[in-house]
Amino acid sequence: MSAAVPPSSAGAAAASLSYEQAGVDYARIDPLKVSAQRAAAATATQLRAHGFSEVAASRGESAYVVDVGPFYLASIVECLGSKAIVADEMAALTGRSWYDAIAQDTIAMAVNDLITVGATPLVVQAYWAAGGSDWFADAARAKALVEGWQRACERCGVAWGGGETPALAGIVEPGRIDLAASCTGIVSPKERLSVGDRLGPGDAIVLLDSSGIHANGLSLARKLVERLPQGWLTEVAPGLSYGAALLAPTVLYSPVTEALWKAGIAPHYCANITGHGWRKLLRHEKALSYRIHALPPVPPVLRFIQEHAGHDDREAYSTLNMGAGFALFVAAPDAERSVEIAQAQGVGARIAGRVEAGAKELVIEPLSLRFGDESLQLR
Amino acid sequence: MSAAVPPSSAGAAAASLSYEQAGVDYARIDPLKVSAQRAAAATATQLRAHGFSEVAASRGESAYVVDVGPFYLASIVECLGSKAIVADEMAALTGRSWYDAIAQDTIAMAVNDLITVGATPLVVQAYWAAGGSDWFADAARAKALVEGWQRACERCGVAWGGGETPALAGIVEPGRIDLAASCTGIVSPKERLSVGDRLGPGDAIVLLDSSGIHANGLSLARKLVERLPQGWLTEVAPGLSYGAALLAPTVLYSPVTEALWKAGIAPHYCANITGHGWRKLLRHEKALSYRIHALPPVPPVLRFIQEHAGHDDREAYSTLNMGAGFALFVAAPDAERSVEIAQAQGVGARIAGRVEAGAKELVIEPLSLRFGDESLQLR
Repeated sequence: MSAAVPPSSAGAAAASLSYEQAGVDYARIDPLKVSAQRAAAATATQLRAHGFSEVAASRGESAYVVDVGPFYLASIVECLGSKAIVADEMAALTGRSWYDAIAQDTIAMAVNDLITVGATPLVVQAYWAAGGSDWFADAARAKALVEGWQRACERCGVAWGGGETPALAGIVEPGRIDLAASCTGIVSPKERLSVGDRLGPGDAIVLLDSSGIHANGLSLARKLVERLPQGWLTEVAPGLSYGAALLAPTVLYSPVTEALWKAGIAPHYCANITGHGWRKLLRHEKALSYRIHALPPVPPVLRFIQEHAGHDDREAYSTLNMGAGFALFVAAPDAERSVEIAQAQGVGARIAGRVEAGAKELVIEPLSLRFGDESLQLR
Repeated sequence: MSAAVPPSSAGAAAASLSYEQAGVDYARIDPLKVSAQRAAAATATQLRAHGFSEVAASRGESAYVVDVGPFYLASIVECLGSKAIVADEMAALTGRSWYDAIAQDTIAMAVNDLITVGATPLVVQAYWAAGGSDWFADAARAKALVEGWQRACERCGVAWGGGETPALAGIVEPGRIDLAASCTGIVSPKERLSVGDRLGPGDAIVLLDSSGIHANGLSLARKLVERLPQGWLTEVAPGLSYGAALLAPTVLYSPVTEALWKAGIAPHYCANITGHGWRKLLRHEKALSYRIHALPPVPPVLRFIQEHAGHDDREAYSTLNMGAGFALFVAAPDAERSVEIAQAQGVGARIAGRVEAGAKELVIEPLSLRFGDESLQLR
């Protein structure tokens, strides 16, 4: 797709395909991230002049939280990533637009992060930066994007506030679109705040099912298609093409977290399982062990990627969601009811493990896998 | 820069250069905008389930406002546009990074819009989408971006909450970066809300000086460089190159609006003068006449663009800010003091005109220009 993606490795189909080979080099991004995080942290004092303060524990979490008095304010901006390229490829092959699903993916990236801190999402803003004005001239595609966006907002109970639709020739590639969403919400009442202070031994780990790859790991998935004889139309299950399976929209989890609160359940912590796969279960900085005893079913497209990329379970579970899109850490007595509440919202769920005292590690017993503290450095 | 930009017109240097020729076709974007706005408006009812409601008058304004009880919540996402390309060109020519200024521009796009509704900006989120991981490997450039971002946040009294730094090979052009910012704030106390209900005949129009082109009109400015024998290094004033002049960072106006409120002045309405130039003074839907009797000085780079693009005053003032970056519509008795308060914040200001009863129009008396209601259709 671009000069920044390394040369095709299609000639070495049996070789394992790493995330770095697929064009994302975290080592180069991370030094900037560290300096940006430091500079960002230094600005927190600005809130004092307004009589407010940040919730310091939200630094490094998935959404930023400010105490504005009667409640907490949470905000975030999130990028879709490269999934829209798959939609473009599939549109060329199938003659229909997949941007209704892509819209949901984009909103999910923002909303599913925002809710981890206990926030109720209220407003979503759209960021649709196209490679040129002509992107918007495809009426069917534009309609799919608008309708999918509206539907996802309605599913999450948020107002779509507005947004930006710039034409960025020279920055965004011709024919492409850079999609992102910002989301603002409140944590109200304040005891809904979940930044991990109540996370501790004995908590149950409830995993909510994913619908497929969601919107992380797409660089790898796109690279892989070069190895497939029928490309995007290769079947991952009878009647289901690789491209269509990848484009299953990301599950929106805010109906679950809202329903939990209505039932009196405030998770002690949440992790949105995106990049870094199951290593995201190690997200909180506390020294705790996370022991998994039950696995969710693996969506066919993820098993397919694992097999064709030549990944062992360690690499697969440390990169992809492998069926778990969101983790709730709840008090053990709330676990069964949390599962029922999620299922009542149409989201598959299971009690998958428990939090234990001990060294910081994730143990996936059914697969005999262990990930230590060194596995995930996000802060 | 890109296939989406029409072929060079450098051979016809004497011909006038329109915005459409420069690669932005509003006719193609606007139908999508209309359908998106309708779909967005339909989602407002989602707030009811949370016990909240939108401020309907903020639909179509520069920021979206929700009534959350004790105060209003305002939010926005804004794109820098193509100004970063100028920074890249100038970096190649001068050997230094201009991204400190670019950072301020990006934040200004969001903050200057957010404050129009009377909001105090509280949190900014960064959206930095690069064409590949290698963008972040240029340490000097990354440092300039981070430092400029922090400084602009501090100038605006906002906390930098976090953000996204995706590497989007295949979507963002190699070597480029798509910059945007989201901003969340509150309108508190609620009487600070300025969505135009108090705007009326007799109000004074106070114009705040711009520093140059700010971040709108850059497609035109970039196209124009092809006509200049010395390109970006052509002098627009002694010792000031065209490229450097374009890269003067956008003025941050939130220190002015905050200082006004502290002095007891709540503007009846505000307009951030961005795309569409002075036609933005016609932004509010009320049938009112805006009569300008005094003009701000025109920054050399804007006069230079006007001359070299062969624009008459009508075209220049309807495209560029021509020295006025932000408009305050205040009660006439507050006008003089508003000017003094702005100047005390280091922002040039003047009483430039008044609001009158009459047909919706903007009359710029010193230039004998009139823009009617048909000149600006943003909603």
